[in-house]
Amino acid sequence: MGQAETKTFSVEALREFATRIFLHFGVSQQDAAQAADVLLCADLRGIDSHGVARLHSYFELLQEGKINPRPQVKVIRSTASTATLDGDNGLGLVVGPQANRMAMDLAEKSGTGWVSVCATNHFGIAGYYVLKALENDLIGWAMTNSTKLVAPVWGAEPMLGTNPIAIAFPAKDEPPIVIDMATSAVALGKVEMALRKGTSIPTGWGMDREGRSTTDPEDIMKGGMLLPLGSDRERGAHKGYCLGVMVDVLSAVLSGANWGPFTVPFVLRNQIPSRSVGKGIGHFFGAMRIDAFIDADEFKSQMDEYVRVFRATRPEPGTSGPLLPGDPEREAEQVRRKEGIPLLPAVVKDLLDISEKIGVPLSEPH
Amino acid sequence: MGQAETKTFSVEALREFATRIFLHFGVSQQDAAQAADVLLCADLRGIDSHGVARLHSYFELLQEGKINPRPQVKVIRSTASTATLDGDNGLGLVVGPQANRMAMDLAEKSGTGWVSVCATNHFGIAGYYVLKALENDLIGWAMTNSTKLVAPVWGAEPMLGTNPIAIAFPAKDEPPIVIDMATSAVALGKVEMALRKGTSIPTGWGMDREGRSTTDPEDIMKGGMLLPLGSDRERGAHKGYCLGVMVDVLSAVLSGANWGPFTVPFVLRNQIPSRSVGKGIGHFFGAMRIDAFIDADEFKSQMDEYVRVFRATRPEPGTSGPLLPGDPEREAEQVRRKEGIPLLPAVVKDLLDISEKIGVPLSEPH
Repeated sequence: MGQAETKTFSVEALREFATRIFLHFGVSQQDAAQAADVLLCADLRGIDSHGVARLHSYFELLQEGKINPRPQVKVIRSTASTATLDGDNGLGLVVGPQANRMAMDLAEKSGTGWVSVCATNHFGIAGYYVLKALENDLIGWAMTNSTKLVAPVWGAEPMLGTNPIAIAFPAKDEPPIVIDMATSAVALGKVEMALRKGTSIPTGWGMDREGRSTTDPEDIMKGGMLLPLGSDRERGAHKGYCLGVMVDVLSAVLSGANWGPFTVPFVLRNQIPSRSVGKGIGHFFGAMRIDAFIDADEFKSQMDEYVRVFRATRPEPGTSGPLLPGDPEREAEQVRRKEGIPLLPAVVKDLLDISEKIGVPLSEPH
Repeated sequence: MGQAETKTFSVEALREFATRIFLHFGVSQQDAAQAADVLLCADLRGIDSHGVARLHSYFELLQEGKINPRPQVKVIRSTASTATLDGDNGLGLVVGPQANRMAMDLAEKSGTGWVSVCATNHFGIAGYYVLKALENDLIGWAMTNSTKLVAPVWGAEPMLGTNPIAIAFPAKDEPPIVIDMATSAVALGKVEMALRKGTSIPTGWGMDREGRSTTDPEDIMKGGMLLPLGSDRERGAHKGYCLGVMVDVLSAVLSGANWGPFTVPFVLRNQIPSRSVGKGIGHFFGAMRIDAFIDADEFKSQMDEYVRVFRATRPEPGTSGPLLPGDPEREAEQVRRKEGIPLLPAVVKDLLDISEKIGVPLSEPH
């Protein structure tokens, strides 16, 4: 992404703008600020596809009345360490943080907490939720299912979303380990980027609409599909497929949401599933108190050593050696907190479109 | 694996033989039967590398006094939904099932149960434990760390084991979904198989001792290493690396076991780690009561539908369509329960060697 193409906005200007969009549709002040916080977290961490770049989709869904701006989130069922929530078709950016807090509360009482959620919508980056757990000195887990885009091994149609898994482990003096990964070989954002640049994509990322391997990003965007992590059977794509199924079942079958190919699409122009098998999409959150297993200080000292030992791995020829999970996002955040968020022209255009339609000003960069 | 090369043994003959080996070293009757049950489960399910083929390694470790045949497994710490166990350096095949039962007991009381274990040894196939959870109508999780064999992305030395993850979900009329996968691109057994057959291996499986990509299985066996699921950075190997780290931290850092490159080797001839950072290797088990989240019957009916919908996926050209996780192992089990367990000559030779050394007869096939 060339610097020349982008315009850089201050974090606070974008946060203010996003908050006001949500407020415009009747979302409460607290929920609007919460929703904006999740989006800005993605932008800060360099996950551009999941930040304010998605604001236009949320805007459309709210405008069409497809999302409830004032959800009454209900606990459907609970035990000492679990709960199932009905998100009342609220923003995932609001329902997700609420469910995640509930998982953390359960962990405080019972050692761990596990919350499955139905009747919800896209919740932003899974990493947001595990970072919140870190703030509370907990090991956090987050998963969600999403619109169908990934083919099972030996299948020629999309049946699963890119179904991400996030988990984070705190350290003491070293940075925490923060894992946040789609279970597909690659995120759709990278295919969109190749299309924009006019470059081909590596084999192993996706297939065309007929289920044939392709290196043309257009084939994927026009009715094609992504491949599971592992890319092909020989290199373990059945494992990526298994992980996608795991996320789908924990998030959606366990909560009573739509699963697999019936998952509600995020974007209005996408095809509506042939039938409904549950309510909305599904998330799954977990929180584990470290001292439910081991002395928390001992754990964090070991994690410090873990990080140091892995950084000292002998480098592969031509590289500077391994990173730790979460390094790239943390580095992006350090830069962007100082310098602001660079947005592509297409994203700026989308934001200006919203601004014009509902009369909320977007502070242009200086 | 050609039929001509193998000899087929009855399940009961192998079970009896394995049990008597463990008894010989002072393992109790109950524990010996338990350990043999884990090994035979692997053989029945077609995971030949983890069944009686490993008996010789257990035999050597017991003979050298490296494993405690009469462990006093201790609960170090616990909460309503968690426990940490010290396996007292017992057989993983004995400590693992005990820890797994504890996870299931916690789930009965608190909705879910999570048990991290240190001071243990290799526990057989992760799938065994989640099958036990299924017998109790629970969703089961199992993970373990293991001897270093996998390089982190951009690393040129093995730092992680093949660190498997297993999870299983029950259905009603359809078979359950049973996931059991190494977090490396491929299991070492497949490299050994290629070496035996004299064939090359696909790119993306491993590297030689210098960290260079190789298609020669000998390069991997002689000081080389495996690659994480995803194979290379472009196709998501950082995700396989993340999963390997996740399993390592949950199993070993959380329990106080050895992690990463310090994980105790399973085979005596393997290099001893440069230092010790904990006790033995580590496992992590989980159990979730379905009705802690949703009506169990409703869940299982949806899982039936899930299985049917995924089986009906449009097939990739040249294939008969997707499998469900657990299909190949279940099919192997159906055949082997009837026809017995085919063993390669090298495995039979190992068993006869044990038989001769300690005077326990091995019933030859008819």
